[in-house]
Amino acid sequence: MAQLLRVQNFMLSRDGFGAGLNQCFERPFGDADQAALFAWAGATASWVGRREPGGSRGLDDYFTRDYTNNIGAEIMGRNKFSPYRGPWQDHPDWQGWWGDEPPFHTPVFVMTHYDRPPLALSGTTFHFVSGDPASVLDQAKLAAGGKDVRLGGGASTVRRFLDAGLVDALHVAVAEVEIGAGSRLWESPEELQDRFHHEVVPSASGVTHHLFWRR
Amino acid sequence: MAQLLRVQNFMLSRDGFGAGLNQCFERPFGDADQAALFAWAGATASWVGRREPGGSRGLDDYFTRDYTNNIGAEIMGRNKFSPYRGPWQDHPDWQGWWGDEPPFHTPVFVMTHYDRPPLALSGTTFHFVSGDPASVLDQAKLAAGGKDVRLGGGASTVRRFLDAGLVDALHVAVAEVEIGAGSRLWESPEELQDRFHHEVVPSASGVTHHLFWRR
Repeated sequence: MAQLLRVQNFMLSRDGFGAGLNQCFERPFGDADQAALFAWAGATASWVGRREPGGSRGLDDYFTRDYTNNIGAEIMGRNKFSPYRGPWQDHPDWQGWWGDEPPFHTPVFVMTHYDRPPLALSGTTFHFVSGDPASVLDQAKLAAGGKDVRLGGGASTVRRFLDAGLVDALHVAVAEVEIGAGSRLWESPEELQDRFHHEVVPSASGVTHHLFWRR
Repeated sequence: MAQLLRVQNFMLSRDGFGAGLNQCFERPFGDADQAALFAWAGATASWVGRREPGGSRGLDDYFTRDYTNNIGAEIMGRNKFSPYRGPWQDHPDWQGWWGDEPPFHTPVFVMTHYDRPPLALSGTTFHFVSGDPASVLDQAKLAAGGKDVRLGGGASTVRRFLDAGLVDALHVAVAEVEIGAGSRLWESPEELQDRFHHEVVPSASGVTHHLFWRR
């Protein structure tokens, strides 16, 4: 079975942004309304951040339930890992946004120009790697042990992999919110239709799921 | 995490039947047009019966991809396992419809009034059990090792577990085909709305997914 590169549960605004301007420690998604972007996922039974029983098991839950399914590694951009720019030694204690138990439980490849030793936290090991998307994907596939690789974002990182022709399947959940400026995935989802099949699935929660897979 | 009883990818006709009359060896679904019922699933990349690469990765694939996800055991009615009625010793060589490698890869509990020793085939072990739905579910949950239990059908078996209040989540894929008579799941999906949340999700393939989960 071929190993795929999959984007899953990528939260986007109606105007095409994954995050707003001015990311900082207090606001990982910058000026964007993070709660509005995440509401559909947080309401589901299988949301990775759920701490209490309950939650919906309708359409949206199929997407959150699939988050870890056959995933053996993740690739993320540096800004998904950290609000800080520049060399890691300026922020030696930063371990990501997720506390002592990050939700990945696989190797994670953080794309950065600055060297840093691997960081292991409760079954998730962050590797800090430079190199172009194709070489990072090669490393992640090797680490994934035959399973698929998740491309975790942010938007500019997804865009780089799309532009390099490396993405096999892409799920984007568009919320009814506008961000206005920031990290943009697309002007319109139709940009991808020359290279991908495209299905649009409205959900009862108000979010619209866009599903793309390689032609 | 609670263990759920889940019905997944249950194929139904527009008029509410899972199979037609006159089941026999050549026609496991009796007089129903099996190809029309299964077409949406067979077209997906993750369909359990797929033998060659390819297939769609849109909405329908999320349903076929979830088929084995966190499932530790299956329960099925005798008529899903076999076209024969009466004591097993009259058909000693019958091993199910699925050849030497059934697609379950878990313990499977076949509900029957007739004793038969367990049958192990390539990681699937069929246990032949009598008893009411609640006691069979207890056995299946024990065998599932903490995972969920799939209720595999047919329609009359699903109906028995629904009537006993034992089903936690139900996915029914309604194809645009009529069967007219046979094994009926419902007169209308609205029958279940007093006890279940209900979402209706049309797919580009022409099938309509009905998702129910316990209120």
